[in-house]
Amino acid sequence: MTGKLDMLAESRASFDRMNVMKTLGASLDQVEKGAVTISLPMASHILQQHGFVHAGVISTIADTACGYAAFTLMPPGSAVLTSEFKINLLSPAKGDSFEAVAKVIRAGKRVHIAMAEVFALTGESRKLIAVMLATLMVVDGDTGLVG
Amino acid sequence: MTGKLDMLAESRASFDRMNVMKTLGASLDQVEKGAVTISLPMASHILQQHGFVHAGVISTIADTACGYAAFTLMPPGSAVLTSEFKINLLSPAKGDSFEAVAKVIRAGKRVHIAMAEVFALTGESRKLIAVMLATLMVVDGDTGLVG
Amino acid sequence: MTGKLDMLAESRASFDRMNVMKTLGASLDQVEKGAVTISLPMASHILQQHGFVHAGVISTIADTACGYAAFTLMPPGSAVLTSEFKINLLSPAKGDSFEAVAKVIRAGKRVHIAMAEVFALTGESRKLIAVMLATLMVVDGDTGLVG
Amino acid sequence: MTGKLDMLAESRASFDRMNVMKTLGASLDQVEKGAVTISLPMASHILQQHGFVHAGVISTIADTACGYAAFTLMPPGSAVLTSEFKINLLSPAKGDSFEAVAKVIRAGKRVHIAMAEVFALTGESRKLIAVMLATLMVVDGDTGLVG
Repeated sequence: MTGKLDMLAESRASFDRMNVMKTLGASLDQVEKGAVTISLPMASHILQQHGFVHAGVISTIADTACGYAAFTLMPPGSAVLTSEFKINLLSPAKGDSFEAVAKVIRAGKRVHIAMAEVFALTGESRKLIAVMLATLMVVDGDTGLVG
Repeated sequence: MTGKLDMLAESRASFDRMNVMKTLGASLDQVEKGAVTISLPMASHILQQHGFVHAGVISTIADTACGYAAFTLMPPGSAVLTSEFKINLLSPAKGDSFEAVAKVIRAGKRVHIAMAEVFALTGESRKLIAVMLATLMVVDGDTGLVG
Repeated sequence: MTGKLDMLAESRASFDRMNVMKTLGASLDQVEKGAVTISLPMASHILQQHGFVHAGVISTIADTACGYAAFTLMPPGSAVLTSEFKINLLSPAKGDSFEAVAKVIRAGKRVHIAMAEVFALTGESRKLIAVMLATLMVVDGDTGLVG
Repeated sequence: MTGKLDMLAESRASFDRMNVMKTLGASLDQVEKGAVTISLPMASHILQQHGFVHAGVISTIADTACGYAAFTLMPPGSAVLTSEFKINLLSPAKGDSFEAVAKVIRAGKRVHIAMAEVFALTGESRKLIAVMLATLMVVDGDTGLVG
């Protein structure tokens, strides 16, 4: 990778290479320096046994939003790998669609810390249903591994 | 629901109602009182941008294993809902298949605490790639909501 | 306990019964419905090996702030017990004093979820050094145990 | 620091420089490569409002055990700093004494992941009361800061 990449454009290109986002139906809505929004429409194939979206799916979009929020602040040629995250699920995931909004709260040399909120959108209402804290590692851009 | 249900059989029946497990390709391998194993073959549609299985997918099978491990210990007529979990991703998720092994470490009246380990299987090797701690709530079996 | 208690006054009275707060030197600064601030002056007896305040001490004031923020929203006669928390330490804890600011992000019947930020104060500066997500249980006020 | 240090001896020396351990009354029981035990006698000055040891104190000994378990595996001249941890409190902390037993579950170049269990000892009984997952950073030994 050359040194002169636009990390915002790179975020979109990288997102498009994530097969699992297509599988779930998620899309990358907004990308700015240190902040990313991912949206996910309600759909039958992502539900758990009670008809709510599975907590793991909600975690997947929140984690991905944290990852790209961190990625936008990393040096060109970097890649991002989740080291850990914790999610509190505040309410069952029901609604017309879901929105994971992440922002970086600390950008370090080796690790970035990000927080994400996930909202359920139903008609006009926008309800907070989950909160995540995540640690993202700055890794080598060619391999996706820690350098 | 009547009071006389076999929670192990109920776990399998409930798992089969989880659309997202079919979407990911996961299956419920072993179910015993307080312990559950879920397996997931490597597949193209669950990958992130570097060709590893997405951390969110690994979290989804670990969370589900924790959930059913807890469910097996709940009173008949109960249901289970994840309150929160934390996952440490130890190594990138590459391998032929993945196995999430969960066990309950505390079963309470209202909440159960479970731990899961996720292994990557490649040929003969079985490598620990993630560890989860989760809190599961005992909820009403008909609605999936807190009573 | 009678039913007509002022939970804000109760929070102060309860805090005063916490020996460990005196041991560390922490005080309860602000208490309002769903939000609490605890402060802690830098002191030699709470340091780790590099001269920073120990991560566990920072966690203790953050957890306590989350606990009382939740407590203020609970029914009279309740008590609060931490079920779990996760803390990300963003920077080493050095400064003249520290401030843990917690707010409840979901108040439920059985569990409350709170978030805390911890700031290091040095002269005029106020730096975010830690973020916590915590689950607090509503417990019986006489025993401090789950009912 | 010279390159030829015995990290087990170093762990003991470092522990002795932690004022907060004296303040709480904790001692370093066992230190081996990748595994550490810290013990803490019940005492009045570390209690919360219901007469249990404060969750933050339990977290402090668990975090410290994780930290030194990681430290024993680091290159000479390194130091260790907690990046984050999550703790599930399974039962109120009552007993004659407490024991935090930590082991490293992944040792990397930049970060180590450790798990700790905390037990309450009462007479002959030894009850698991808490479980922690922690991320520890390898930092510069002279400053305690990320290199």
